[in-house]
Amino acid sequence: MKITVLGTGGGARAHIARLAELGHEVHVGTRDPRATLARTESDMMGTAPFGSWLADRPGIELHTFADAAGQGDLVINGIDGHNAVAALSGAADQLAGKTLIDYAVPFLYNPDIEHPWPTPWGTMPTLDPCDSDSLAEQIQRALPASKVVKGFVTQEQETVVDPKAVGGGDHTMFIAGDHADAKQAATDLLTAYGWDDVLDLGPLVSARGMEMYAHMHSAIGFALGFGTRFGVKVVR
Amino acid sequence: MKITVLGTGGGARAHIARLAELGHEVHVGTRDPRATLARTESDMMGTAPFGSWLADRPGIELHTFADAAGQGDLVINGIDGHNAVAALSGAADQLAGKTLIDYAVPFLYNPDIEHPWPTPWGTMPTLDPCDSDSLAEQIQRALPASKVVKGFVTQEQETVVDPKAVGGGDHTMFIAGDHADAKQAATDLLTAYGWDDVLDLGPLVSARGMEMYAHMHSAIGFALGFGTRFGVKVVR
Repeated sequence: MKITVLGTGGGARAHIARLAELGHEVHVGTRDPRATLARTESDMMGTAPFGSWLADRPGIELHTFADAAGQGDLVINGIDGHNAVAALSGAADQLAGKTLIDYAVPFLYNPDIEHPWPTPWGTMPTLDPCDSDSLAEQIQRALPASKVVKGFVTQEQETVVDPKAVGGGDHTMFIAGDHADAKQAATDLLTAYGWDDVLDLGPLVSARGMEMYAHMHSAIGFALGFGTRFGVKVVR
Repeated sequence: MKITVLGTGGGARAHIARLAELGHEVHVGTRDPRATLARTESDMMGTAPFGSWLADRPGIELHTFADAAGQGDLVINGIDGHNAVAALSGAADQLAGKTLIDYAVPFLYNPDIEHPWPTPWGTMPTLDPCDSDSLAEQIQRALPASKVVKGFVTQEQETVVDPKAVGGGDHTMFIAGDHADAKQAATDLLTAYGWDDVLDLGPLVSARGMEMYAHMHSAIGFALGFGTRFGVKVVR
């Protein structure tokens, strides 16, 4: 299958590598491919430059967002939450009719803070939108011809692509969306990643809770100790 | 132990009954005890009048909020989120120095809607405060001499007092607060209720995520079918 991943950060790389491993034809989108490939320094999170990462993975192609979106039959959005609506709107034609899985958390972008993640517990992240709207709903409104699924957002992407690494895989992944066929495509992908328990939370309005869960996720992460991998299982 | 429960709704009754069963001396607070006892009709949620419920439970005393707060060594707040700060502020003296466990979700009160719970999925609840503050932090600021613990809020109270009823009890309860001794008191109570896994999410700022989880909790509940009991387990 031809699958597009939009974004080149750590989460996007987890999907790119795993999708290639599963035998898919992977296309990657970035704002400016030449600028992305020209970077030679690790970023502030310690993530290696994408060019050197890609050099070890032949067969994966880097395009602009729009060109990459045009290639895939299914598209995974890994663009930062605060840039996502604008960037995706520029690829609306290429995304029309396609399943678009969005896992971004819409952290409120503050240019005075280098990254929005809290230190325990000095700075708490805040979200925009929140509570009465969600990023996923904003994306769906901006791209009415696409089929948006919110998914993957309640987990680190490294665990999304490798669920068995936590508790033998005995935990739950959530999806929501207004298009049943797109949710089935997302579920099929999650099953291929190794998920046994994918819980459909209904229409896209449930993305609000999935995005707002970012607060709980970070609090649990800090409670367990930074870097501890964990999952949440819906026990019923 | 002398334990006070503020509130007479379904959640409060779950605690009152269980605490009495565990042998505690239970004091219950309500705004106007005579008015509470005078009610003879079930409310819109189908909850029976408190007077008839209480009549079957000898030894449990009903007081005003302040008088009830003065009786307990530990206090559980089951007052509706939108009334909690005002009602608790009126009992600040009686609550000074005490552990105050708050499980309210601060649903935004809309007098035009009979109750704030969503129908799948016509009306989604919204929260006030949300994201950059929490009800628990508001209560702690309003009652600086009390020791507020946010807890119980990620579950139906019927399951909080009887965790073994779901998955044999193999799920997780969360607490947060700025006072270690108060969190220990809350943990001891949860252990008596039957909880094996109580996860301390750190300072009270983590109450934001616990309250915001209400969206996920309701979405999961609707996905599983209204009335299905479930828990969430942190798998690590």
